[in-house]
Amino acid sequence: MAELPPPIQVLKAALGRLPGIGPRSAERLALHVVQSDAGWVKDLSAALVSAKERIEFCQQCGALTEAQPCELCEDPRRDSSVLCVVERPVDVISLEKSNAFRGRYHVLGGQISPLNGIGPEDLRIAELEKRVESPEITELVIALGSDVEGDATSYYLAERFQGHSIKITRLAHGLPVGGGLEFADELTIGRALEGRRALDIDDSEE
Amino acid sequence: MAELPPPIQVLKAALGRLPGIGPRSAERLALHVVQSDAGWVKDLSAALVSAKERIEFCQQCGALTEAQPCELCEDPRRDSSVLCVVERPVDVISLEKSNAFRGRYHVLGGQISPLNGIGPEDLRIAELEKRVESPEITELVIALGSDVEGDATSYYLAERFQGHSIKITRLAHGLPVGGGLEFADELTIGRALEGRRALDIDDSEE
Repeated sequence: MAELPPPIQVLKAALGRLPGIGPRSAERLALHVVQSDAGWVKDLSAALVSAKERIEFCQQCGALTEAQPCELCEDPRRDSSVLCVVERPVDVISLEKSNAFRGRYHVLGGQISPLNGIGPEDLRIAELEKRVESPEITELVIALGSDVEGDATSYYLAERFQGHSIKITRLAHGLPVGGGLEFADELTIGRALEGRRALDIDDSEE
Repeated sequence: MAELPPPIQVLKAALGRLPGIGPRSAERLALHVVQSDAGWVKDLSAALVSAKERIEFCQQCGALTEAQPCELCEDPRRDSSVLCVVERPVDVISLEKSNAFRGRYHVLGGQISPLNGIGPEDLRIAELEKRVESPEITELVIALGSDVEGDATSYYLAERFQGHSIKITRLAHGLPVGGGLEFADELTIGRALEGRRALDIDDSEE
């Protein structure tokens, strides 16, 4: 037995395709599974298939959902005049956790990246254009990453939609809340300085 | 949608019971799964159940196996006179990978730990005693960890089996191969010094 028994090898290979799980972790997890409670293994196996089968992308906004359209598109209490553009479905979840945005979402499904052969036509930009044509929309909040591709995509969107009479904004960059200067990189500190605001005690929040 | 859709929550909870997977990793993995190729998710799900169903413990040595007794107990080319005692079934795999041991194994299933209420009767020591009674056995290699519990269990076994006319040995402790002194902790260096050997060019390997 210089090798693992075949069923463990198969499981190790399948687990090794999870993000962040290298061959050693996959082996450790596979060995843990075969020594665990059979009930839990069945539950995990069923949960995988069930989640994959029941979760799809909302045909309108592109977020993860069980129903069409999704809860967020359906919710009448949300502000339909503001549309937040994000890269991936998981970004919707991050923004929702912040509880700071009450508008609607639009998932692009990626960012423009000429190096990887991803152009605007590969993203859900035509769908976004259709939504922006609705007179209801007054603001587009671009919530993409601040890497090269996020910047390129943001500027592309700003240019493409500047003809429409809507406000186009982008999330602020700066220091993470709760972190000191010593934990921020130079670029973030640069952006935080650029975006500095007057500290006015009477500042009626904008 | 301040919360994840229920099928993703269920999957996150199940994944969160894997060793080394905290709530954040479990969420990341669950979100990855629902956005992955359905074929792979089915394969992973099937591999989990199949590995759990097909792998059991060898009734003789306690290693992981598909057949009873296991390959290692069945293999006629292995040396039946040397028995290597390990804590867990995965330890057998680690030793096999080293290709340095050609005898048989015995998995204890744990180590003596009075603090956790684990005594000798909770381990596969009675089974070991039965195997040691065979006149074939001439050496017991104790390959337990070098923590307090490993030490306690090793000394317990040495004492318990000293009546039998067999050699009882324990794995050497020292510097890991390929690592310099700067990576070894003080205890390891101490043990390496204690166990130092004469460097003799004519040393016909023992």
